[in-house]
Amino acid sequence: MHPPDVFTDGPGGRRHAHEQLAALKQRLLDMSEHAEELVDVAVRALATRDRDAAELVISRDAALDSMEVEIEQRAISFLALQQPMGRDLRFIVSAIKISSDLERVGDHAVNIAEATLRLADVDEQLPTPAAIHEMARDARQMLDKSLDAFIRSDGGLGREVCRMDDDVDALATSVFRMLLSAMAEHPELIPPALQLLLVSRNLERVADLATNIAEDAVYLAEGKQIKHHAEST
Amino acid sequence: MHPPDVFTDGPGGRRHAHEQLAALKQRLLDMSEHAEELVDVAVRALATRDRDAAELVISRDAALDSMEVEIEQRAISFLALQQPMGRDLRFIVSAIKISSDLERVGDHAVNIAEATLRLADVDEQLPTPAAIHEMARDARQMLDKSLDAFIRSDGGLGREVCRMDDDVDALATSVFRMLLSAMAEHPELIPPALQLLLVSRNLERVADLATNIAEDAVYLAEGKQIKHHAEST
Repeated sequence: MHPPDVFTDGPGGRRHAHEQLAALKQRLLDMSEHAEELVDVAVRALATRDRDAAELVISRDAALDSMEVEIEQRAISFLALQQPMGRDLRFIVSAIKISSDLERVGDHAVNIAEATLRLADVDEQLPTPAAIHEMARDARQMLDKSLDAFIRSDGGLGREVCRMDDDVDALATSVFRMLLSAMAEHPELIPPALQLLLVSRNLERVADLATNIAEDAVYLAEGKQIKHHAEST
Repeated sequence: MHPPDVFTDGPGGRRHAHEQLAALKQRLLDMSEHAEELVDVAVRALATRDRDAAELVISRDAALDSMEVEIEQRAISFLALQQPMGRDLRFIVSAIKISSDLERVGDHAVNIAEATLRLADVDEQLPTPAAIHEMARDARQMLDKSLDAFIRSDGGLGREVCRMDDDVDALATSVFRMLLSAMAEHPELIPPALQLLLVSRNLERVADLATNIAEDAVYLAEGKQIKHHAEST
């Protein structure tokens, strides 16, 4: 064990550190893009009850799992070799948490795809409520903006994402009411309605995860802990 | 920025490092105990539709939020002062992830408490299925064992927790079927049945979080990544 040599460009040097950080940021952006795409494909598959697209989401989730492992390994090796302090240290810790959040986004996309497969097997059909598509659009935008806020250290953008979460929650409440009355009036619609309810909960969770990321971005930018609204599920 | 002095017992010394690690472990155990207790109180409040106990869960969740912040700060200051390598570094990174998982357990307990409050407002009642109590008991045991596995670096115990997750999933499936047929036969029971379904999902998520912790324990003990079953919700 030896201290990093910050005055040269050897393995622990500053230029190298800068490149390692840039690569880590890029991998986080790639991972976020992949996660957003999975959510997008999952919700489009749901709209048309497209089995093949749903299966595609399920098979493509493995890439997110390995991206999480890779980002965590990069972060740990950065900690070991560069022994960062202050802001860089906080950035690395947040990057580890964010990769774990993005991996969970993929799990929620898989849950939506599985709901689509079950819906395709159900006799009675119920069209996907428009509010579910709005939730999906908002949740993807929140993911995109939260990563931007984190990478660019933009506290204002992070706060904007936190506010968007309220819109998604309101949409979820309206989906819940709509499906509840559909079930009450047409009990034969209970099986498809429950699947759609599940989809709505999963999208709410994606928005919560984006909010977590945005909170980390605000903390990094402003040093203020704005955490801890309750999670939905 | 200077390298830690590992040969003395100054601020960055080894004895100090050992004490800091011990304190961090103790705080994780305290946090886990508090999280388990919240789940326990939430499910007992559900059984008797006890509003006061449900409100208690909601008010006591804040303690978990501050424990997460405290553990993260301890971990970051350990990284900065001790600049750990190898196994200690991996332990610290996992501790940060675990505190975030435990904070989410608290959120799920709050969700269960909120479902209890809504159930107390509903006219039609449906008794809590026994399988929900079994899920709660299993999920708490999983949390307890996963933390033990992590702190004692016991890979076998970690794997045991991962296997228990299958039992919880099976219980959740049976709760789902039971509630589905209750709703189909008695549409007036749809509102309480949906709340109980929500409780079951939240317990399934608590078990998933315990499984995440157990996977980290196995990785720490054996160096093997056994991650990535899909999350439920």
